Amino acid sequence: MPGSRPDLRVAAREIDLSPTETAGGPRPNPPLQVYDTGGPYTDPDAALDPARGITRVRAPWIAERAAGTTQMGHARAGVITPEMEYVALREGLEPAFVRDEIARGRAVIPANRHHPEAEPMAIGRHCKVKVNANIGNSPLSSGVPEELEKLVHAVRWGADTVMDLSTGEAIHETREWLLRNSPVPIGTVPIYQALEKAGEPEDLSWPLFRETLIEQAEQGVDYFTIHAGVRREHIPLARERLTGIVSRGGSIVAKWCQAHQAESFLYERFDEICEILAHYDITVSLGDGLRPGCVADASDAAQMGELRTLGELTERAWAHGVQVIIEGPGHVPMDQIEANMAAEREACHEAPFYTLGPIVTDIAPGYDHITSAIGAAQIGWHGTAMLCYVTPKEHLGLPNADDVRTGIVTYKAAAHAADVARGHPGARARDDALSRARYEFRWQDHFNLALDPERARAYHDETLPREAHKEAAFCSMCGPRFCAMAISQEL
Amino acid sequence: MPGSRPDLRVAAREIDLSPTETAGGPRPNPPLQVYDTGGPYTDPDAALDPARGITRVRAPWIAERAAGTTQMGHARAGVITPEMEYVALREGLEPAFVRDEIARGRAVIPANRHHPEAEPMAIGRHCKVKVNANIGNSPLSSGVPEELEKLVHAVRWGADTVMDLSTGEAIHETREWLLRNSPVPIGTVPIYQALEKAGEPEDLSWPLFRETLIEQAEQGVDYFTIHAGVRREHIPLARERLTGIVSRGGSIVAKWCQAHQAESFLYERFDEICEILAHYDITVSLGDGLRPGCVADASDAAQMGELRTLGELTERAWAHGVQVIIEGPGHVPMDQIEANMAAEREACHEAPFYTLGPIVTDIAPGYDHITSAIGAAQIGWHGTAMLCYVTPKEHLGLPNADDVRTGIVTYKAAAHAADVARGHPGARARDDALSRARYEFRWQDHFNLALDPERARAYHDETLPREAHKEAAFCSMCGPRFCAMAISQEL
Repeated sequence: MPGSRPDLRVAAREIDLSPTETAGGPRPNPPLQVYDTGGPYTDPDAALDPARGITRVRAPWIAERAAGTTQMGHARAGVITPEMEYVALREGLEPAFVRDEIARGRAVIPANRHHPEAEPMAIGRHCKVKVNANIGNSPLSSGVPEELEKLVHAVRWGADTVMDLSTGEAIHETREWLLRNSPVPIGTVPIYQALEKAGEPEDLSWPLFRETLIEQAEQGVDYFTIHAGVRREHIPLARERLTGIVSRGGSIVAKWCQAHQAESFLYERFDEICEILAHYDITVSLGDGLRPGCVADASDAAQMGELRTLGELTERAWAHGVQVIIEGPGHVPMDQIEANMAAEREACHEAPFYTLGPIVTDIAPGYDHITSAIGAAQIGWHGTAMLCYVTPKEHLGLPNADDVRTGIVTYKAAAHAADVARGHPGARARDDALSRARYEFRWQDHFNLALDPERARAYHDETLPREAHKEAAFCSMCGPRFCAMAISQEL
Repeated sequence: MPGSRPDLRVAAREIDLSPTETAGGPRPNPPLQVYDTGGPYTDPDAALDPARGITRVRAPWIAERAAGTTQMGHARAGVITPEMEYVALREGLEPAFVRDEIARGRAVIPANRHHPEAEPMAIGRHCKVKVNANIGNSPLSSGVPEELEKLVHAVRWGADTVMDLSTGEAIHETREWLLRNSPVPIGTVPIYQALEKAGEPEDLSWPLFRETLIEQAEQGVDYFTIHAGVRREHIPLARERLTGIVSRGGSIVAKWCQAHQAESFLYERFDEICEILAHYDITVSLGDGLRPGCVADASDAAQMGELRTLGELTERAWAHGVQVIIEGPGHVPMDQIEANMAAEREACHEAPFYTLGPIVTDIAPGYDHITSAIGAAQIGWHGTAMLCYVTPKEHLGLPNADDVRTGIVTYKAAAHAADVARGHPGARARDDALSRARYEFRWQDHFNLALDPERARAYHDETLPREAHKEAAFCSMCGPRFCAMAISQEL
C-alpha cells in the first residue's frame, strides 16, 4: 500500500480467492488483504542473504531525524512521522489518531534508530492485538542457525515482535544476526547478558548494566525489559507464595537487593536508563519481576505492589519522552482476568499492557499454549495490547522450531478472537471469507484463508488426499451423504 | 470410596507423591485423589475381554427397580438412589443435594437401565464441568476396532461421556461393542441410523424413527440427541445466514419439513418419544439443529427461536419424568458467550447446558480444538454443565485416536479452568499440588499430576532425557544458572 512519500510502502498480503459457482456461472470473489508480519520472508521474489541482512526500510526516515528524538516526542510536538503513517495504513486508522495515541502513551511504536530493518508496528489498545514470540538459546541448547530459523518461522507464522532471551554462548553474535534479519521489532532482557558478564547476581553493578544496555542499544534492540519495579519492600511479600518468584529477571534483582541490603540500581538509576533509551528511541517494557507463577499466587500483594511501582516508573519514563509498555502475568484464574486488566489500566495510566498468557489452570503441562491462550484471548478482549506467546514446551524445556510455530498460530488465533470480540473494525472479514469458502466447499480458499494453511491442508488430506476431493461437497468427518452444509444448500 | 451398601464402591484415582526434601530430612506428601473416568481401564489389575464386556456395576441396583421409573421420578419422590449416592461421593456433594438438583431438573444422571456397565455421573451446573467426546465412523473411514480404541482412549484421557456418531457401516454392531465396554454414559443421534435405513431425508417417518429409537434404547444408549426444536417457522430464518444449517440432524429435519410441508414428527410426537425414554430412563439431549456455523451467524433469530422451543420441550419432557439437557453452539464470539448462557438458563428453566465449544474465531482450521477451548472455558465458567470436545480435525476430517486424545485433554483443561474460576470446592487442589511439585523440582510428581503425564514427560525428555535430570533444579528452558525458581529458593 503506497503512502504519502515514495519510500513509504506498507507491507500487506493478499489472499487470492476462487470464484463461487452459481446457477448463472462463476461469480468472482475479490482477494482478501491481511496484515502481514513476514517482511521479505513473505515475498517469493525477495533475494535473501542472512550475512548481508534484509532491506533497511526505515533508513531514509531515520537519516532525517536527530538522535535523541523519540516517536513520543514527535507525537507530542504534533508531528506525524513516517512510522506513524505506516502504522496507520497498516492498521486502517487515521494517522492523526495514531499520533495522538502515541502522544498520550496509550500506544507505542518500538523502533530503535539503529534497527532500520524493522517495518513499523504499533502496540496499543486501539490497535489490533499483537503477539510476541520468545526465542533465544539457553546454555544447554541451540545455536545461531537454529535461532535464525526460529525468527523466520516466527515472523512467517505471524509474530508481531520477537524477544531474544538468549542466556547461553554467543549472546552478542546471535542478537546481531537476528537484528540484521528481522522485519519485526526485537526485544531483550539486558540483565541476562549483564549476568553472564558478572557471573553471580550479587556481582552485578550499575556500570556493568549500563555498558550492556548501550552495547545492545547500539546493535538496534527495539525494546528492553527492565525489572525496575522490584523494590526491597516487595520481596518479603513473595516469601509466603506457593511458587515464590518465577521471573528470571525478578529473581536476579531480588537476590541482588538481598545481598546488598539496598534498593536495586534499576530503580535508583531509572532516570539515567531513560536518558539512554531516549537517545535511541528504545521502548521500555517494564518487567513484572513478581508476577505469579501459579493460579494460587495470582493477584497477590507482591504482584499488586510491583504494579503500583510500574505506574510511578511509567510517568518517569514519559517525562523523558520514552515509550512504555507494562508486562503482566503469567498465571491468573479466569474470574480474576478482567480485574487484572482494570488494575493495570488504572495504576499505569493506560500504558499498553503486555501479558504472558495468562495460564488459567496449572494442571496441563504440555498443553500450556492452550491453557494460556484461554487467558490471553480474554485479557486481549478486555484491552491488553500484546500477548506474549507460550509454547507447548512451557515449564518443560526449550521450544524447537515446530513448537514456535504452534505457539504463534495459537496466539494469533487468540489475538484475533480478541479483535473480533472487541468489534475492531474489519476484524471479522477474514472469518466471514473463510466461513463462506467453507460453506461453498471452496477447499483451496478454505486452506489459504487459514492462519496455518499447511496444517489445514495436511489434516484434510490425511483421509482425502486426492485432488478431486478439493472440489468435493463433503469431507471425511461426515462423508458425502451426511454433510449438513450440502443438505442445507439444497434447501 | 465405599458407599452405604457393599455393592456401592465409587471409582477414583490416587496419585502418589514423593516427599519434599527439607533441611530436617524428607517430609512426606499425602497422595492426591482425583476424579477418574477410566473405569476398569484405569485399573492395572482388571481382566479385560472386549467380547465379554466390562463389569456390570449397576446391575443389582437396576434389578431392584421397576422399568419406567426414572432418576428424576425417584428424586421427586424423595428417594436417594444408589446412582445419586455414587455421584455425591464422586463429586464431594451431599446426597440429598444431588437428589434435589435432579428433582428440579438442574442436574441429570444419564443411565439407561440397559447399560449397567456405566459408572454413574452427573451433569449439572453445581457439579464439576464435564467433557463429552464424539467418536464414530463415517462411511469413508474407520471400523469397530478403531472405534473401540477411540472409546478406551477417550475414557482414559478423561471423557465423562462419549457420543457414538457413526453413520457408516455396521452402526448397530459398533454401538453394541461400545456399550458393553463403556464405563461412561453413551449418547447417540438416532436420526442418523434412521436415515441410513430410510435412504433419503424425505423418506424418514415416525414408525421408522420409533423403531430405531427402541432398537437403540434396548441396547442401552444413555442419552439421545433429538432435534425436536427445529420447527417449520424457524427454517426460513436460517436462509440469510452465511453458513445456513450446520447441524447434521438439523439439516435432515429441515429437509423433511420442506419436503412434507409439515411440522416434524420429532416435534409432533415428542410426548410419545418421552414415553419411550421414560421406560428406559434415557436422558434427552435437545439438539440445536439451528446452531450457528460461524461467528457471523451467532445468536441470530434462528438460534434463539429454536432455543425457546427447546424450553417448551423441556417442560414437556419433565412432565414425563424424563431428564433433559440442552445442546448449544457452536460458534460464538467472546463478547456474546455470557449472554448465550443467560439466554439458555432463562428459556430452558435451568436445564443443564451442553455446548459444542463454542469456537470464538473461524480463521484457524487445524487449531479448532484451541479456538473452541477458549470459548468452552468461558461458557463453562458462566455455568455450562458439559462441554462437547472439538478435535484438531474439526471442519477437515474424521479424528484419529491421537486427535481424540488431544481433544479430550484440551477440554479437560478448559473444564477444570472453569471449575477453578467458579470456585468449585477443592477444584484448585490439583493445581496447587502440581505447582508445589514444580517449585520443588519433584519432576516425577510434576508429570504424574499433569492431565497428560506421557506428553509432559516426553517434552521434558526431548532435551534432558537422563534419569538424573528428573532430580535437577532446572530444565532446558532456562538452564541451571538462570532458573528463577532455584534462585528464589535460595532467597
